Amino acid sequence: MDTNRLASSIVRGDRAALARGITLAEDYPAQASRLLVRLGPPGRAFVVGVTGPPGTGKSSLVDRLIEAYREKGLKVGVIAVDPTSPITGGALLGDRIRMTAHAVDRSVFIRSMASRGWSGGLSRATSQVIRLMEAAGFDLILLETVGIGQSDIEVVGVSHAVIVVLMPGLGDDIQVSKAGLMEVGDIYVINKSDLEGADPMVVSLLSLFRGSPRSPPVLKVSALTGDGIGRLPEALESIRQKFLSAGEDLKLKSIRGMIVEEARGAAMARLAVVSQAKAGRLARQVLAGKITVESAAARLVR
Amino acid sequence: MDTNRLASSIVRGDRAALARGITLAEDYPAQASRLLVRLGPPGRAFVVGVTGPPGTGKSSLVDRLIEAYREKGLKVGVIAVDPTSPITGGALLGDRIRMTAHAVDRSVFIRSMASRGWSGGLSRATSQVIRLMEAAGFDLILLETVGIGQSDIEVVGVSHAVIVVLMPGLGDDIQVSKAGLMEVGDIYVINKSDLEGADPMVVSLLSLFRGSPRSPPVLKVSALTGDGIGRLPEALESIRQKFLSAGEDLKLKSIRGMIVEEARGAAMARLAVVSQAKAGRLARQVLAGKITVESAAARLVR
Repeated sequence: MDTNRLASSIVRGDRAALARGITLAEDYPAQASRLLVRLGPPGRAFVVGVTGPPGTGKSSLVDRLIEAYREKGLKVGVIAVDPTSPITGGALLGDRIRMTAHAVDRSVFIRSMASRGWSGGLSRATSQVIRLMEAAGFDLILLETVGIGQSDIEVVGVSHAVIVVLMPGLGDDIQVSKAGLMEVGDIYVINKSDLEGADPMVVSLLSLFRGSPRSPPVLKVSALTGDGIGRLPEALESIRQKFLSAGEDLKLKSIRGMIVEEARGAAMARLAVVSQAKAGRLARQVLAGKITVESAAARLVR
Repeated sequence: MDTNRLASSIVRGDRAALARGITLAEDYPAQASRLLVRLGPPGRAFVVGVTGPPGTGKSSLVDRLIEAYREKGLKVGVIAVDPTSPITGGALLGDRIRMTAHAVDRSVFIRSMASRGWSGGLSRATSQVIRLMEAAGFDLILLETVGIGQSDIEVVGVSHAVIVVLMPGLGDDIQVSKAGLMEVGDIYVINKSDLEGADPMVVSLLSLFRGSPRSPPVLKVSALTGDGIGRLPEALESIRQKFLSAGEDLKLKSIRGMIVEEARGAAMARLAVVSQAKAGRLARQVLAGKITVESAAARLVR
């Protein structure tokens, strides 16, 4: 199928075409770029990052959000970039369970993505997949990542809202502040609040925000028992309403993030093409003491 | 202190100077590059990546390796890039405990690094810190990262040997193969083998390697009880001996990784300098439908 036909099939809402576009973004981002330029500008879909340490139950909360927004009649896309999640890490089985739950619902599209490969590659692909889902008519796109390392920082860049998911017994506030999660959340969720230690965690989290200009909501929920779970879509909805009414700043932030990811990915890809053989030759000269690592790197970038 | 003096202090083995160089690498990698060109070529220190999912006890194994190699009289540097580790995630407390244990030993240098910031930034800094420690006379450098996401793939590039740490109950082989850990390990350790499920895990891990050209050792150990723990330094030592005797391929691989990290970091940094304001202006044009994300990205890279 040529790029023009694939583009129009995606816009028409053809799920197989969307899946094909996503595979393209994962494997051949440069080709995906040629597809994406045919799909119109981004800015319509509401993009929500859901991040937090492994095991905090992000997937269950994502499932709840899918349900809540399906009830409103929105089309919901999910991108899971979490190697420890039952979706991605547990992999096939997890995928199958969730796909089955929403299989009859053609207004839900779930895709897990591998977090391997060159730095910058994943986030470029993620950003491209958001744009593909948006072009396919999805109104809400949930981006689930494990709250560890760089992928989350990048996710923040393309999201309109970020939900940080925590749970009791994580080492409390230190972990949160060290992992850079303090700055990024628009909503904080203490999940598994049926476990001991939830209340102190809420208190310590609130105390971290005391004196800061930000005061994001801190929600105590249990995806297991359902306690407090309704407050999450409520809190998210109030951000989405801002996005829908005024929202130009929010839209610009996300688009800026997409531009940066695309630029970064393109720059990295260019480097990758030249790097292997040339870097090998340069390494010999460095080992022989003829040139420095720095000058070798400079020759590689050029 | 000027760069020349800092460089000679580091080479002389001044710990405060080394710490200062490391801070430079974390915060001002371009300045660190100017320091590094004064430090002579890399290739002497043996660099070992220690990676694996959160909670598998990487830090304890690293401690055991420190002890084992200190007994041989080697100087050991440790770089911990693991937000969930007691060293980095638990942060101050963990650092203090470990620093205290080795505080009297001036032949051990432990440094934890934050895993935040621009993609490529962390791995560039890590690669730079390895080179700083090597210049300061450290013979063995242990690089501890959490086995999730891209930072590990990058760690592999600069390491001479990679130890993958697993534990029973991780979801077995699926998690390992999905997370990309199958390809990277030179030694596999099933830690916490006092827990149930260690033997089946060894079996399933060995079966993953059946039919593959690789057959890395799979060690069942318990850092807690000490069972089997001696086999880890043994297995590592046999790789180090290869590195010391022939080892040119290994050395070239690591240097190539360092060149690529430096190039990537430099390219990213250049992008970061221009990106924020310019990306903002470009985002407005994208939102208005005047240009595509792709053409905006191309203008950013140029």
